[in-house]
Amino acid sequence: MNVMQQTIITLLSDFGLKDPYVAEMKAVILCKCPEAKIVDISHEIDKFNIRMGAFVLASAAPYFPKGTTHVAVVDPGVGTKRRPIIVKTKRSYFVGPDNGVIMLAALKEGLRHVHVIENPQYMFSRVSKTFHGRDIFAPAAAYLAKGCAASEFGKKIEDYVVPNFVKPCFENNVASGEVLHVDGFGNIITNISSEILSRLAIRENDFAKIDIDREATVLKFCSAYGDVSLGEVLAIVGSHDFLEFSVNQGSAAERFKAKSGDLIRVQRRVHS
Amino acid sequence: MNVMQQTIITLLSDFGLKDPYVAEMKAVILCKCPEAKIVDISHEIDKFNIRMGAFVLASAAPYFPKGTTHVAVVDPGVGTKRRPIIVKTKRSYFVGPDNGVIMLAALKEGLRHVHVIENPQYMFSRVSKTFHGRDIFAPAAAYLAKGCAASEFGKKIEDYVVPNFVKPCFENNVASGEVLHVDGFGNIITNISSEILSRLAIRENDFAKIDIDREATVLKFCSAYGDVSLGEVLAIVGSHDFLEFSVNQGSAAERFKAKSGDLIRVQRRVHS
Amino acid sequence: MNVMQQTIITLLSDFGLKDPYVAEMKAVILCKCPEAKIVDISHEIDKFNIRMGAFVLASAAPYFPKGTTHVAVVDPGVGTKRRPIIVKTKRSYFVGPDNGVIMLAALKEGLRHVHVIENPQYMFSRVSKTFHGRDIFAPAAAYLAKGCAASEFGKKIEDYVVPNFVKPCFENNVASGEVLHVDGFGNIITNISSEILSRLAIRENDFAKIDIDREATVLKFCSAYGDVSLGEVLAIVGSHDFLEFSVNQGSAAERFKAKSGDLIRVQRRVHS
Repeated sequence: MNVMQQTIITLLSDFGLKDPYVAEMKAVILCKCPEAKIVDISHEIDKFNIRMGAFVLASAAPYFPKGTTHVAVVDPGVGTKRRPIIVKTKRSYFVGPDNGVIMLAALKEGLRHVHVIENPQYMFSRVSKTFHGRDIFAPAAAYLAKGCAASEFGKKIEDYVVPNFVKPCFENNVASGEVLHVDGFGNIITNISSEILSRLAIRENDFAKIDIDREATVLKFCSAYGDVSLGEVLAIVGSHDFLEFSVNQGSAAERFKAKSGDLIRVQRRVHS
Repeated sequence: MNVMQQTIITLLSDFGLKDPYVAEMKAVILCKCPEAKIVDISHEIDKFNIRMGAFVLASAAPYFPKGTTHVAVVDPGVGTKRRPIIVKTKRSYFVGPDNGVIMLAALKEGLRHVHVIENPQYMFSRVSKTFHGRDIFAPAAAYLAKGCAASEFGKKIEDYVVPNFVKPCFENNVASGEVLHVDGFGNIITNISSEILSRLAIRENDFAKIDIDREATVLKFCSAYGDVSLGEVLAIVGSHDFLEFSVNQGSAAERFKAKSGDLIRVQRRVHS
Repeated sequence: MNVMQQTIITLLSDFGLKDPYVAEMKAVILCKCPEAKIVDISHEIDKFNIRMGAFVLASAAPYFPKGTTHVAVVDPGVGTKRRPIIVKTKRSYFVGPDNGVIMLAALKEGLRHVHVIENPQYMFSRVSKTFHGRDIFAPAAAYLAKGCAASEFGKKIEDYVVPNFVKPCFENNVASGEVLHVDGFGNIITNISSEILSRLAIRENDFAKIDIDREATVLKFCSAYGDVSLGEVLAIVGSHDFLEFSVNQGSAAERFKAKSGDLIRVQRRVHS
């Protein structure tokens, strides 16, 4: 048994909260591991949106204690040949379908090894074709939280799916990347980190030329939403250390009609 | 004290998540039973929809450990003469209004006995006329989880309300039933079980003539959503062992304008 | 260490449930106080609506055990000069921004003292400018739940922000107040208490002349929603001991186009 193993199990899915699905996963976990502390990350991931699931999981996972087991079920391929997997990283376990949804978070933490879940001993007694969250992933998480090693679940693999997002880059004094996520406040969260921004030598109160999906605008870099008037747009390094565009008490996503995947370019504005 | 008694208490309601109501129920439970493990089944049941509440509870309850106490509050008759009841089954306790919402789940598990909650000693100090979830059902669940017997709450009754749903049947080579639930993915879940389907001798990849609320269609029986192309309709035995109609990464409910209670007929297609 | 200190920590915010924000707060709490019992009050407060947050918190908080720590984050001024504070009351701790959101609940319980959170030792290792919920309020709650005193976090202040809501009053045989909240059922909840109503000598089945935002109507005082026919309007003393207007299995808020802050006048109807 792994001494650092926690009994914290987090759940992320696109199941929503009106149906019985999330509760069924929790019930299965509590049957097999009554001492589990279950924490919901989100069940409001847009249906089948692996990219959004991957972003939300990768944002939240690093804040959990070492040894946490994270289960993520955004799984349009359930019942097909896509494999159920367990990823062991330097900090955590990740459990979910082999479609990339857990890989962004896992790679960020440093991958140790990836195993397929194929040992029926660690599955629900009867595995449905449409709900592996309850029948495969929840039991796997419970057994991991109880101290089972990933290797007990099935063979090690190397050909797991890695999500293919646009890499942020810095070239010719332009930082570029894409929109990772539009949050519930309408904040547009990009994958351009503060480290990349620092190469542009942009400081607080500076202005920058910004293209959001090819539409150009000029924004001020602020350190709080309240640094501009109500309803005004700003650029800010958000709480995940990424460049964000926001409107003070309004929605930047509405203003720019921005959505996940839109291309972003940032250029320091040369004062004339 | 019942040795199999768990401290797991589940909650189901039509309260939604923006108001303080669910938290007040949890607070009352934690005051009386600090060791309770509270699990939400759903608070997004459509307002006053006893049938939907009954279905969601009956779906999730069987997965919880024996001895769990389930509280369900879909309660349009709160404050009127409808009685608050406790149902003891072979596996669990169910607590809620006597309007059928808990009875589908309770009957499925095998009924032991039903008691009215009338002992004020087990209620909140001051009982409101509009919120028995907090003032009667939550305290009852807490006392049950602590080991009180149902008989301590009030007299045994036999004239409890049983919900009156269309029974699925098989006649003249036609299986018929109704739509139980439309889930957040738009899956149309019927009350026709795999056992009834087996009498039609339908196997994977077979086609069947299906009427959904009198509109006829022909669907292929698949074993995974991904067995048809994106956006195509399929028939499948879902994770609760009922016949479902789905669209691969789309909404079958939108396609067929289906809703809970719609009549369903399934007929094996004779190949010409 | 305070002997009455609980490990229950409640969370209220306008973050919604699709983003990683709530989970990040929980993760930070569990890192610092693994034994914490975290209970969500609501994360569906309307964005930036301090008044709604204050009402929902003040409704739910009194039902929690003594010694509970309540965290409320409706925080349009995050990152500006508004101070993060801890309020100790006769029953609980409240943690949040100094903008009034926690003050309605705290004053109701009886204020002991208010401290600014300024000791970096009790904050997240790196404090962002946009997410004090995770970086300041969650760690503060964890340390309070572990037994730290409010005085360890920073200096005592007296000039905290008190929300300025319309006080209910009784004058010339008219009770007046305002709409506090419209709940998910469409119930219109006012700040006119049963105590004020009693001065009007209104009893069950009496009728009263009521102005909702200057539109006059006549309503019957009932003791259950089911006391009128389906779809009919009634007046009732709700579960928080306030006057409410409701429609039996319908929405009073839709009927009267009522919203938080609307003025309310109630006058006993003199039978001719």
